[in-house]
Amino acid sequence: MTILETQGEAAQYAARVLARTGTAEKNDALEAVARALTARQEEILAANAEDMAAGRENGMSQALLDRLELTEARIAGMVEGVRQVSALPDPIGRMVKMDTRPNGLIIGQKRVPLGVIGIIYEARPNVTVDAAALCLKAGNACILRGGKEAFRSNHAIMAVLRDALEEAGLPRDCVALVSDTSRESAQELMNLTKYLDVLIPRGGKGLIRSVTENAKVPVIRTGEGVCHVYVDRDADLQMAAEIVYNAKCSRPSVCNALECLVVHRAVARKFLPMAQEFLRAKKVEIRGCSETCAILKEAVPAKAADWDAEYGDYILAVMVVGDMDQALDFIAAHSTGHSEAIITENYSAAQRFLNEVDAAAVYVNASTRFTDGFEFGLGAEIGISTQKMHARGPMGLEELTSTKYIVYGNGQVR
Amino acid sequence: MTILETQGEAAQYAARVLARTGTAEKNDALEAVARALTARQEEILAANAEDMAAGRENGMSQALLDRLELTEARIAGMVEGVRQVSALPDPIGRMVKMDTRPNGLIIGQKRVPLGVIGIIYEARPNVTVDAAALCLKAGNACILRGGKEAFRSNHAIMAVLRDALEEAGLPRDCVALVSDTSRESAQELMNLTKYLDVLIPRGGKGLIRSVTENAKVPVIRTGEGVCHVYVDRDADLQMAAEIVYNAKCSRPSVCNALECLVVHRAVARKFLPMAQEFLRAKKVEIRGCSETCAILKEAVPAKAADWDAEYGDYILAVMVVGDMDQALDFIAAHSTGHSEAIITENYSAAQRFLNEVDAAAVYVNASTRFTDGFEFGLGAEIGISTQKMHARGPMGLEELTSTKYIVYGNGQVR
Repeated sequence: MTILETQGEAAQYAARVLARTGTAEKNDALEAVARALTARQEEILAANAEDMAAGRENGMSQALLDRLELTEARIAGMVEGVRQVSALPDPIGRMVKMDTRPNGLIIGQKRVPLGVIGIIYEARPNVTVDAAALCLKAGNACILRGGKEAFRSNHAIMAVLRDALEEAGLPRDCVALVSDTSRESAQELMNLTKYLDVLIPRGGKGLIRSVTENAKVPVIRTGEGVCHVYVDRDADLQMAAEIVYNAKCSRPSVCNALECLVVHRAVARKFLPMAQEFLRAKKVEIRGCSETCAILKEAVPAKAADWDAEYGDYILAVMVVGDMDQALDFIAAHSTGHSEAIITENYSAAQRFLNEVDAAAVYVNASTRFTDGFEFGLGAEIGISTQKMHARGPMGLEELTSTKYIVYGNGQVR
Repeated sequence: MTILETQGEAAQYAARVLARTGTAEKNDALEAVARALTARQEEILAANAEDMAAGRENGMSQALLDRLELTEARIAGMVEGVRQVSALPDPIGRMVKMDTRPNGLIIGQKRVPLGVIGIIYEARPNVTVDAAALCLKAGNACILRGGKEAFRSNHAIMAVLRDALEEAGLPRDCVALVSDTSRESAQELMNLTKYLDVLIPRGGKGLIRSVTENAKVPVIRTGEGVCHVYVDRDADLQMAAEIVYNAKCSRPSVCNALECLVVHRAVARKFLPMAQEFLRAKKVEIRGCSETCAILKEAVPAKAADWDAEYGDYILAVMVVGDMDQALDFIAAHSTGHSEAIITENYSAAQRFLNEVDAAAVYVNASTRFTDGFEFGLGAEIGISTQKMHARGPMGLEELTSTKYIVYGNGQVR
């Protein structure tokens, strides 16, 4: 058996224990984790300092170093996150439905854990704590594979987590870290069908594509977001400009940020300069269709690739359309199915957009930036699913569960 | 573009139309399908007669010929099935939840179709009608790939379905049949990620394993059933014998049939002869552990492979265990997670079995044969999922759907 298979087997055993662990014990374990993270933060910070030093030596970008860095305040944030997860209602054991059949069988559908969840992520060590806490609360064991840049930090965090779980009376193997960060270990994790029930990639587009295409384990695809805002002919243009600015500029690196603005021709000449007024504050580069370029002289002509680009930066593609049909066709052709918004005061246009646009979240008169587990009231988030199977949109605790049918009989045969 | 890619693109377009088609129109289309199947049954029977002749020529087994054969009565059954699907409540458009957030956003989660569903199945032509009707009612386009033995029958049925849909004002491409039945076409369907949202294999173990292992499209694994009945020390032994007989013998070829009986040592000596009394009526071959063989002299010693065998036949593996822990460990090691039952009058044993056994359906004092969409009150069934993601257990219309978040704002930015 390989190391990872051994970890898989141990995780599967731990998952069986976790599945029958009550809410109070799981919360106690999360509290033990929170206390231990605080008590042992020096170890974690020391390991992180080594990762940071190695990162600097290897010429890691400042943005990546920022993601990698842990501080007392960031550890306090992780601890706070664990306590928030502990405070959330436990989805496990909830009866989705239950009824008596004509033959007297009482059939119920009950929430149960998924089992063992694999998570592949990149350079943020806080994901290690965050993902472990969410999986644990939903009764799942997890096997985490973080980025190689954060390996020492993740290793130190994992030691704290496992000790705390053991102290709380749960198996250490409820959480585990893949012990090397080679390409081969990622590939092996993607093929660990015997032990993993689901695999969730969290990170950039390259990571997600690679996992989606190569994994034999069932995957929940997260986070690719080429999001559109469509400014209708009947939009409140001031509102539209504010929403476009917020959706593009409040945090351009995230998946729910705006990438492409679609504008009805009837209002383009008036609206585009208004929008640009806002966008100028962040020096947003505009890559426009020919009509856009004719209206905004700072705009540069968009290339074909711009209509499918997830910039994650202060760049905005802009397309002018002749009517709503064109807008819907354009969005259908270029959307990644994450978040799409219409700005309009027209009732029928709003309802049509909500009905016909095929995305995890569809908005009228609001910023796409709200697609988020906390904003949607789920209390937590493991990622945002852009697939249609199992879960769609922000995934909270319930999305980390499955169901089983339980049947009470008194001798029924068929 | 290959033929299949062309079909995929057409299906995706049809799915967009279907997603905005109301319940009344979908029901009208199903009624048109029902009428057309009756009106054009001669064509279908003629095509089926050719398949049957070819099957006989190729030495197809009588059991397979039975599955392949269509008669007026079987077509009437298919028509009846279509009308039953039409009568079911439409899951699409139902609001799973809806609430107002503190910032005034009104956020709802709404049922929507999955999109385009691929189904790979074997020699039963009735699946063509059945699957098409279920997909259509849930607002999905589908691409079907039946077995080569039934190609002429499926082709004739498909022509009737597509004409009827067109007559009812829907795109013909709401349903399509893969135009050849080569291995290559199956492989291409499994990799059609650009157009298929999900792939469901329906058929034997070999087919399901091959699809699960080779598909890049997300798969819902169905139907593998190594089902156990555990006869506890506190069982009502007469009830236990009746349930064992029913679970094994009422239809041994199906996935919810019993394959392995697990008996508590304290009652084995009394119970096994009682059970055998029933099983003898169908000449069930018993493959037992050493204790079983010591009690039942007709039993033959089980080999290791027997504990994981899905016989689909009048054969039963029997294992005697010392206590409930052993029973649970044995079931955890050999179950395919389909249907598992305990027979007991002991309250705590019953509750423990329901809690700890990890399967799509877990029973107390009833036959495993009830795991079925109709028996569970879903009104229909596209298959029985044995995976934990998306759907678990019998899948009805709701399991052929996804959700999307719809958000009503009035200018919110974040």
